[in-house]
Amino acid sequence: MKIAVLPGDGIGPEIVAEAVKVLEALNLGLEMETAPVGGAGYEAAGHPLPPATLKLAQEADAILFGAVGDWKYDTLDRPLRPEQAILGLRKALGLFANFRPAICYKELTHASSLKPELVAGLDILIIRELTGDIYFGQPRGRRVAPDGHFPGAEEAFDTMRYTRPEIERIAHVAFQAAQKRSKRVTSVDKANVLETFQLWKDVVTEVGKQYPDVALDHMYVDNAAMQLVKEPKRFDVVVTGNMFGDILSDEASMLTGSIGMLPSASLNDKKQGLYEPSHGSAPDIAGKGIANPLATILSAAMMLRFSLNQEAAAQRIEAAVQKVLADGLRTADIYSEGTTKVSTAQMGDAVVKAL
Amino acid sequence: MKIAVLPGDGIGPEIVAEAVKVLEALNLGLEMETAPVGGAGYEAAGHPLPPATLKLAQEADAILFGAVGDWKYDTLDRPLRPEQAILGLRKALGLFANFRPAICYKELTHASSLKPELVAGLDILIIRELTGDIYFGQPRGRRVAPDGHFPGAEEAFDTMRYTRPEIERIAHVAFQAAQKRSKRVTSVDKANVLETFQLWKDVVTEVGKQYPDVALDHMYVDNAAMQLVKEPKRFDVVVTGNMFGDILSDEASMLTGSIGMLPSASLNDKKQGLYEPSHGSAPDIAGKGIANPLATILSAAMMLRFSLNQEAAAQRIEAAVQKVLADGLRTADIYSEGTTKVSTAQMGDAVVKAL
Ligand SMILES: CC(C)[C@H](C(=O)O)[C@@H](O)C(=O)O
Ligand SMILES: CC(C)[C@H](C(=O)O)[C@@H](O)C(=O)O
Repeated sequence: MKIAVLPGDGIGPEIVAEAVKVLEALNLGLEMETAPVGGAGYEAAGHPLPPATLKLAQEADAILFGAVGDWKYDTLDRPLRPEQAILGLRKALGLFANFRPAICYKELTHASSLKPELVAGLDILIIRELTGDIYFGQPRGRRVAPDGHFPGAEEAFDTMRYTRPEIERIAHVAFQAAQKRSKRVTSVDKANVLETFQLWKDVVTEVGKQYPDVALDHMYVDNAAMQLVKEPKRFDVVVTGNMFGDILSDEASMLTGSIGMLPSASLNDKKQGLYEPSHGSAPDIAGKGIANPLATILSAAMMLRFSLNQEAAAQRIEAAVQKVLADGLRTADIYSEGTTKVSTAQMGDAVVKAL
Repeated sequence: MKIAVLPGDGIGPEIVAEAVKVLEALNLGLEMETAPVGGAGYEAAGHPLPPATLKLAQEADAILFGAVGDWKYDTLDRPLRPEQAILGLRKALGLFANFRPAICYKELTHASSLKPELVAGLDILIIRELTGDIYFGQPRGRRVAPDGHFPGAEEAFDTMRYTRPEIERIAHVAFQAAQKRSKRVTSVDKANVLETFQLWKDVVTEVGKQYPDVALDHMYVDNAAMQLVKEPKRFDVVVTGNMFGDILSDEASMLTGSIGMLPSASLNDKKQGLYEPSHGSAPDIAGKGIANPLATILSAAMMLRFSLNQEAAAQRIEAAVQKVLADGLRTADIYSEGTTKVSTAQMGDAVVKAL
C-alpha cells in the first residue's frame, strides 16, 4: 500500500508530520513517499503540481495532503498559484466524491459560535461533487460581450455544467453513505433558477427510487445556508454540486467551532483518494508548533477506511483522538480553561500513545 | 407618487395590509394600486407576472411587494411558477442593486442561533447584484454534452457572466453606501476558480480607488460563509454577485435570528425600487393572522427613503418600530417569555399608534 505524502505550505508540513507519526505507529507496512506541492512545488520545481508529484500521486493508493497557499504567492499568475495543485489533482485523478463531515465533539461544543443546544452532538456529512460544475466547465474566459445588458463591453464568463452520469454517480455515493447513517439525504439545488440544478434535482430524485430505505428531500441552496444556522441537527447527509458544496461545507465546518478537528476525503471510482484537513494552510501560525494536527490525523483514519481497507486501524485512530480529547489535551485553537494546552507534536505523540 | 402594491401569496396579503396601513397613516398623499402577482397572478390571469401587473409596476415610482410561492404551484412548468414574477420584475425594471440589511435588534438578540455576544449590535449591509450573473446569463438549457467527462450524455448548463460596467455600477453603490456607514467594504468573490469573479475582483479594486475614504478587502465566498458564522460583526458592507449574494444574504439574515424583522430594497438606476421583506411567503401560517409584518413595514420605510425621497417619514416608521419593540410587543416568531404576544394586525396598529 503506497501513500503519496504531500505536506504543502504553511502549517501543512507540521500537521502532516504528526499524521505520518500516527500511521507509522500502526505498523501497517505502508510505503510513504513525500513530494512538494502548492507553493512548495512552485519553489522546488516552478509549478504548484510538479510532474513528479503528480506521477507519485497517480501511482499511489492514497494521498495524504496537508494544505496549500500563502500570501506570498498571491501575485503569481493564476495557473501557478498553490490552489491550482488541488484542482489539478482532483481533475487528474477524477476525485469526484468529496466527503466533508461536520462533527461537533462533545468536549468542544462550547467552541461553537452557536448555542450549545443547537450543536451538541451535531454530525452532518456533506457530500460535494468535486470534478464538475462551474469549477471545470468549458467554455470560460474573457471576451467582448456578444449580447446581454452591455453588448460590446469587456466581459468574463464561466460555464456551469452537469451531465446525467455525473449526477447519478455522486447521488449513489450519497444514498449509500446515508444507508450507513440515519438514512436521510438532503439534496441541495437551485432548480428554481438554474437549468443545471433542475437536471440535478430530477436525477437525484430518480436515483433515490433505488434506495427506498433512505428519505430524500430537496432544499434550495439559499435555504440550506439558512437552515444550517437555524437548525443544523436537522441534516444527516447533504449532497450537492461543486460550487454550492464549497460554500456549504465550509459554513457547516465553522458551525462546529472546531474546524481544526475536521477531516475530508476526495475519492474516485477506483477508491483512490486524497485526504486532507478541512482547514487551510494558516500561514500566520506556520512554524510555531501550535497548529492542531487532529484534522489531518483523522484524515489519515479516513484514508485507512476508504482507500486502504483498514477499518480496524481507522477506528483505532478515531478512538485515540477521542481519548486525548477526553484526557483534556488541547492545541491552542480548541483550548479552554481547565484543559491542558499542548503543541502540535505533543498532540501527535499523545495520539500515538493512546492508540 | 405612485406605488404598485403587490401582495402575492401566503402571508403576503396580511403583511402588506399592515404596511399599507402604516403608509396611509403618514398622510403623504401616496397613490397606491394593488395587483396580483406570483401564485395569485397565475390564479387571476394565468401568469405569475400578468401584463397588467407588470405595466403597473413599470409606471409606479416604487413597488411594495409581499411574498410569492406556495407548494401548490410546485408542479407548474417553471415559467409559470410564482418566483418567476420576482425574476421578471428584476429584469424588466433593471433592478440591479439589492440591499439586504442584516440587523440584530437589541431586544431580539436572544432569538439568534449564535451566542449573544457575537450578534448583539450586528449591523451588516449586504449589497447583491441582482440582474446579472448565472441568474440571467445566456446560453443555458439542456443538450447532449459536446465534450467534458461524459461526451454524448444528457447535460444541463448555465452561463455565469459579468461585464465590466455591471460590476462598476454595483461597486459604486457599495462604496457609496459604505461612506454613510463604517466605511468598510468586503467584496466577495471566487477569483481563485472563476474567470467571472477574477474580473469582478479587478473591477471592484479599480472602482475602490475612487473612494480612498473606504477600506476595501476581498474574501472568497467559502471563507465569507465561514466568517459570517465565526465573527459576523467584522463586516460592514458586503458586495457580491447575484448567486453568492443569494446565499450569503440569507445566511446573514438567519444569523440575526429574527428574519421576520428584515426588509430589503432592489433599485434601478432611476431609483425606482421593489421593496419586500427578506423572508418568504410562509404558506404554512398564511391566513392565521400571526405573521410578523415588521419586515414589510420596514421595507416601506426603505421605499420612502430610496425611491420617494421622504427621509423624515422613513425615520418616523423606523422609530415607531423601535418603540413597539421596546414596549415589548412581539408576534409569535419573535415572542419570548415576559413580552406581549400580538397578532399581525395588532402589530400594525401598534406601529401606527407609535408613529
Ligand atoms: C482552494 C480552492 C480552489 C478550493 C475549492 O474551491 O474547491 C477550496 O476552497 C476547497 O474547498 O478545497
Ligand atoms: C425566489 C428566488 C428566485 C429568489 C432568488 O434566488 O433570487 C429568492 O431566493 C431571493 O433571494 O429573492
